[in-house]
Amino acid sequence: MSADRIRIGMVGGGPGAGIAKAHRMGMRLDDRYALVAGVFSRSLEKSRQAAAKLGVDETRVYADFEQMAREEAAREDGIEVVAIVTPNDSHYPVARAFLEAGIHVICDKPMTGDLEEAERLNALAAEKGRVFVLTHNYSAYAMVREAARRVRDGALGELRIAMVEHASGWAASLVEADASNKQAAWRLDPAQSGEESLIFDLGTHAHQLLRFVSGLEVTEVSAELHTCVPGRRVYDDAQVQVRLANGARGTLWASMAATGHEHGLRIRLFGDKASLEWRQMDPHYLTLNYPGGRRETLVQGHDGQSPDQARLTRVGLGHPEGFIESFANLYGDVAEAIHRYRETGQAAHDDLPLPGSRDGLLGVRFVKAVGESHAAQGRWVHIPL
Amino acid sequence: MSADRIRIGMVGGGPGAGIAKAHRMGMRLDDRYALVAGVFSRSLEKSRQAAAKLGVDETRVYADFEQMAREEAAREDGIEVVAIVTPNDSHYPVARAFLEAGIHVICDKPMTGDLEEAERLNALAAEKGRVFVLTHNYSAYAMVREAARRVRDGALGELRIAMVEHASGWAASLVEADASNKQAAWRLDPAQSGEESLIFDLGTHAHQLLRFVSGLEVTEVSAELHTCVPGRRVYDDAQVQVRLANGARGTLWASMAATGHEHGLRIRLFGDKASLEWRQMDPHYLTLNYPGGRRETLVQGHDGQSPDQARLTRVGLGHPEGFIESFANLYGDVAEAIHRYRETGQAAHDDLPLPGSRDGLLGVRFVKAVGESHAAQGRWVHIPL
Amino acid sequence: MSADRIRIGMVGGGPGAGIAKAHRMGMRLDDRYALVAGVFSRSLEKSRQAAAKLGVDETRVYADFEQMAREEAAREDGIEVVAIVTPNDSHYPVARAFLEAGIHVICDKPMTGDLEEAERLNALAAEKGRVFVLTHNYSAYAMVREAARRVRDGALGELRIAMVEHASGWAASLVEADASNKQAAWRLDPAQSGEESLIFDLGTHAHQLLRFVSGLEVTEVSAELHTCVPGRRVYDDAQVQVRLANGARGTLWASMAATGHEHGLRIRLFGDKASLEWRQMDPHYLTLNYPGGRRETLVQGHDGQSPDQARLTRVGLGHPEGFIESFANLYGDVAEAIHRYRETGQAAHDDLPLPGSRDGLLGVRFVKAVGESHAAQGRWVHIPL
Amino acid sequence: MSADRIRIGMVGGGPGAGIAKAHRMGMRLDDRYALVAGVFSRSLEKSRQAAAKLGVDETRVYADFEQMAREEAAREDGIEVVAIVTPNDSHYPVARAFLEAGIHVICDKPMTGDLEEAERLNALAAEKGRVFVLTHNYSAYAMVREAARRVRDGALGELRIAMVEHASGWAASLVEADASNKQAAWRLDPAQSGEESLIFDLGTHAHQLLRFVSGLEVTEVSAELHTCVPGRRVYDDAQVQVRLANGARGTLWASMAATGHEHGLRIRLFGDKASLEWRQMDPHYLTLNYPGGRRETLVQGHDGQSPDQARLTRVGLGHPEGFIESFANLYGDVAEAIHRYRETGQAAHDDLPLPGSRDGLLGVRFVKAVGESHAAQGRWVHIPL
Repeated sequence: MSADRIRIGMVGGGPGAGIAKAHRMGMRLDDRYALVAGVFSRSLEKSRQAAAKLGVDETRVYADFEQMAREEAAREDGIEVVAIVTPNDSHYPVARAFLEAGIHVICDKPMTGDLEEAERLNALAAEKGRVFVLTHNYSAYAMVREAARRVRDGALGELRIAMVEHASGWAASLVEADASNKQAAWRLDPAQSGEESLIFDLGTHAHQLLRFVSGLEVTEVSAELHTCVPGRRVYDDAQVQVRLANGARGTLWASMAATGHEHGLRIRLFGDKASLEWRQMDPHYLTLNYPGGRRETLVQGHDGQSPDQARLTRVGLGHPEGFIESFANLYGDVAEAIHRYRETGQAAHDDLPLPGSRDGLLGVRFVKAVGESHAAQGRWVHIPL
Repeated sequence: MSADRIRIGMVGGGPGAGIAKAHRMGMRLDDRYALVAGVFSRSLEKSRQAAAKLGVDETRVYADFEQMAREEAAREDGIEVVAIVTPNDSHYPVARAFLEAGIHVICDKPMTGDLEEAERLNALAAEKGRVFVLTHNYSAYAMVREAARRVRDGALGELRIAMVEHASGWAASLVEADASNKQAAWRLDPAQSGEESLIFDLGTHAHQLLRFVSGLEVTEVSAELHTCVPGRRVYDDAQVQVRLANGARGTLWASMAATGHEHGLRIRLFGDKASLEWRQMDPHYLTLNYPGGRRETLVQGHDGQSPDQARLTRVGLGHPEGFIESFANLYGDVAEAIHRYRETGQAAHDDLPLPGSRDGLLGVRFVKAVGESHAAQGRWVHIPL
Repeated sequence: MSADRIRIGMVGGGPGAGIAKAHRMGMRLDDRYALVAGVFSRSLEKSRQAAAKLGVDETRVYADFEQMAREEAAREDGIEVVAIVTPNDSHYPVARAFLEAGIHVICDKPMTGDLEEAERLNALAAEKGRVFVLTHNYSAYAMVREAARRVRDGALGELRIAMVEHASGWAASLVEADASNKQAAWRLDPAQSGEESLIFDLGTHAHQLLRFVSGLEVTEVSAELHTCVPGRRVYDDAQVQVRLANGARGTLWASMAATGHEHGLRIRLFGDKASLEWRQMDPHYLTLNYPGGRRETLVQGHDGQSPDQARLTRVGLGHPEGFIESFANLYGDVAEAIHRYRETGQAAHDDLPLPGSRDGLLGVRFVKAVGESHAAQGRWVHIPL
Repeated sequence: MSADRIRIGMVGGGPGAGIAKAHRMGMRLDDRYALVAGVFSRSLEKSRQAAAKLGVDETRVYADFEQMAREEAAREDGIEVVAIVTPNDSHYPVARAFLEAGIHVICDKPMTGDLEEAERLNALAAEKGRVFVLTHNYSAYAMVREAARRVRDGALGELRIAMVEHASGWAASLVEADASNKQAAWRLDPAQSGEESLIFDLGTHAHQLLRFVSGLEVTEVSAELHTCVPGRRVYDDAQVQVRLANGARGTLWASMAATGHEHGLRIRLFGDKASLEWRQMDPHYLTLNYPGGRRETLVQGHDGQSPDQARLTRVGLGHPEGFIESFANLYGDVAEAIHRYRETGQAAHDDLPLPGSRDGLLGVRFVKAVGESHAAQGRWVHIPL
């Protein structure tokens, strides 16, 4: 293995953990990481089995994350960064352990399931001066970066209206009734994931995508939560009116009951000069609509677009890249940040478009504001910035 | 001219009146009407000029609508029906005059600009027993009829979520600043069209389309109105959360500031079995989305679809029909209703999918509820049925 | 009826004649024609019945087209123009009769089913100095006109490759086995329509569309004809390689056996600067593709496009117009040509984009060249210009 | 590194070699390979530099492929398989060296640039009983596999018409004039790549995709080659009429001068029951078109589709996978074949849909037949099977 691969560990991600596979494929694609340590399961045995499959040395499989943080920090060849892919309610203690051990953190979103923990983690990340990144991978798609760049460069003019959706059909039937569906059991159990798991899971993606592309904060929400599927114990549909920092208006729709939708993440922004649209299902395209009946679709991987997408395009010329590549893009930027840290001992990557702890905190505040507005029959609720 | 063409008159529709042209093309397409009388303008001279171009005999051009109603009712060969294409605030008195003269009425939507007038007109239409139809032409598109039929027949199962938009870009810039743009001047002047002209104009189309396809009433709204374009004196964007009679939720978005959109009417309905989508810009298609990643697009004019679309298809086999044909479809159903009246002396056409005075009243109530909710900071407002 | 409507007669177009309905709707839409005479069927009784429905006076229903040409030419209020909607093999004698009577002609395509007749009719049309128009209606779509304009103005640069298809699925099964399907019986009977009826019916539309948009002649073909459907007695698929006058290459595909296609007319042209695409099923859009992954879709009815489409747009702003409107567009240009003739006594409309007798002749030559090439196992066959 | 990763070497793939990157990403994605040896460049120094970046031990970087084949075959931990990513004209000697050393081969397509070499290599691959796979990666897309499965299962019925395109715009301008564009210089130099490089590069992909999805051989071609771009010394456009083994007809269009196209690989097959379409730019969709105006789009990664796509889907639920994943899919099937070989000592993988040496031979025969037909003015040329 080449000397300069970044040594990474993982907490979570054992058998059945879907998103951890995306993390690992994202790490491998550009060959900048070596996965060398981990706690892949609460069961040490299962953890070791996973490690064997992943080529992780048995000696670096740990009983728990505290031990892992402690021992890896003590090794000369210890991990430089950890990927946290555990359920939301453990993000805070795990992230804290590694940050306090001086290890960079890549953490699944939402940052935490609890607002107070989010506040603390945000403060801790700032204090510790390490790289802290949330895996809002959708903002790492090449054409989302292109979209954000064009918005910054004024392509839309002043933003007026924002319509964003993460309306999936994955739980349009009572999937939690199938005991073998672990993911459903976990995500749709109010005791484990909270009644607002929809907003934590999908709503924060839509919220982050909106903030990332528009460059504007969501300052107020008026929300209606609803449970569509009979027998379900969490909300599965959310209609959220939003007000943005510049006065723009819009609606954020999050759903897991949108029958016939597959993924359902989509953003439309309307400015005074033009509008844009991007859909996750067809991520290599970005559409700009102009007055006068002119619609322009840009295809990833070509000249005349910004370096923001060009540097994320591996093949181009109409060879589509997808979801796994978005993880690889995120991991690539994290690698860049860590290489800088190696050289300078400083976390100095504000110029890289990486979602950090403040984004995570704002995401959790958004979830809480949505819940509060719903409880107050749609009253407008302010989100502190 | 063949003897059985329906004799029709028109109030409004002189030079510059765009929608009146659509009415007249709709009348002509299937050759079931003869336009024989009218008040095309407030100016008798302009009215006569219009009549000459339209082939209407000078003797049947009237100084005002009262005279027209009175004299046409007295003629043996007088008009059987009048098309009212005047500004909204005159719909009530004009419609009343003709109804009271025993003449059927085709009236532009919204039915009135005033709730009390809407109540009265609805009562009057019921009392007079004549055909009274609002030109919500979008529900006369063949594939909208097909959509409504399939919803009735259970294709979607129980409806859960409704997303409907009439988000146009026609007034995304300050078009009212151009004095030559009469339509803009009229529609965007709060004194003439009211602050809620957006909801009257576009919102009621979305509202009616939602009701027509879903077969469900909108019972509550929580609305946010906004003016996007600096210098504008009416609202140009509306985000309206809706609750339907069966408990379904959704959002109705009306806008005239959606830069880069052309027309922007679109409906998506999600049930427990499937979802559907229809867009006015591509009206010959209807898409049904099923669980399991299966999307089905139906093309107008083929076997295996319902008679509801088949009877509205003139050519079929991939020869697209559009907006003007939707007017012709509406006029065709009105012709059917009038022929029945000729035979029976009864307005007995409840089986025809024609928007009537109750639809018009509910549309005006919807507008008023939206305004009331906005004034109350998004409070949920009930719409009486 | 206003005095200046053009008096038109029709030959053919009785019960069951689909395309005649499109003609009549096209005439009516813009109210510039009055249908006042006709031979609608070989049976005088059926012809009279059709006339009654169409509002044509019984006295102007004739036993045959010769009588009609003679008597209408003799009337002061006789027809100015005749629409010929009979089967292909009668186009020549009918057109000749009216041209010789000094009456303008609108003739269905193909101009004739016989090359010698086409040559004669072309010569006759030139000699008689009347308006002679073939109803290649597809070139009358607004966005086809826009496409042709942009090609002329250099948007594509030098044309290199032309791919054009009229690949319909209408006869993908043995529709001629159903005795009640008159259209199939006629079109798919080699005795009535010839073995090459596919090329006459669909191939000539593709050929004309290619010529119209590209502005270039097809000079050579290498063709492969095939019968896909077992039991069929005519060709139902044609793969035709083409060479254009400037050296460009391409393929013209005509089919009536393209299962799952509805209409199937589509053109793609590639120049050295850009390419374009237009599809009849979505006729209100025109797409231009540029190097560098930039695709531009233009929507009919907006500023910034040429007057060629603007003058054909009735409503615009995203209100789609379709097939019937393309007929109305064609009839509108014919009306313009006839009004000029009224004023000058000259057929002087070369500036109007109307398909004439030379286009018809070239279409028939194309059909014959395709048949000849196929018979010679795909040898390249020259088409004289 | 886990013990069961397959040891792989690479010949070619040094700096600037685009496709080798796709190979390596394809290997890494699912972590079933370890790249441990190579000749990455003709220059040993450059080869070592590449190896260092790739984490390949310096001791296993060789001066030439013969040495590599010899020495790796002699090591106990020697490579099991080699990936050949050199220019076409060296495929034969390199593949031969490794096959003769008993090492499995993954070879870029076309198999060779010379027909006689193709015949020999095909014979050799059969004789040696090792895994021999051509990287026709497009047939490894999940929805291409789904398409092939459905065709085998009769979804289309009897195939009648095949339209396949690989019409790219990558060389629509004189890209070879830019000396820094090594790829263009190589591919567009007749001395290096032959006049028919277009058919070798793109044509064989279209040919293989057609064979793979239809399950039918191309038996005859009638071809027209052309050079669109002034100054170019190879053909850049090919219109090829095809006849398939069952009598179906169609056209294969290969181009690198299709301005405004990006990638341009697309297949449409028409049977007597239905038709299908797949486009490489949007590879996660497969569209089936049925009579009666019904179009069905299947989205990758869902229930109700075949295991052929399901086993290739990593994430599913609307998370798109693209070009790199198609390489990973191919490498995954090769890994399966090699694991079987490990167990049995037999190359027994005919049930895996891997393109092998016979496919490669037929591809080269196709190229030659196209050239021969063109030289004979489009005469139909038979392809021996």
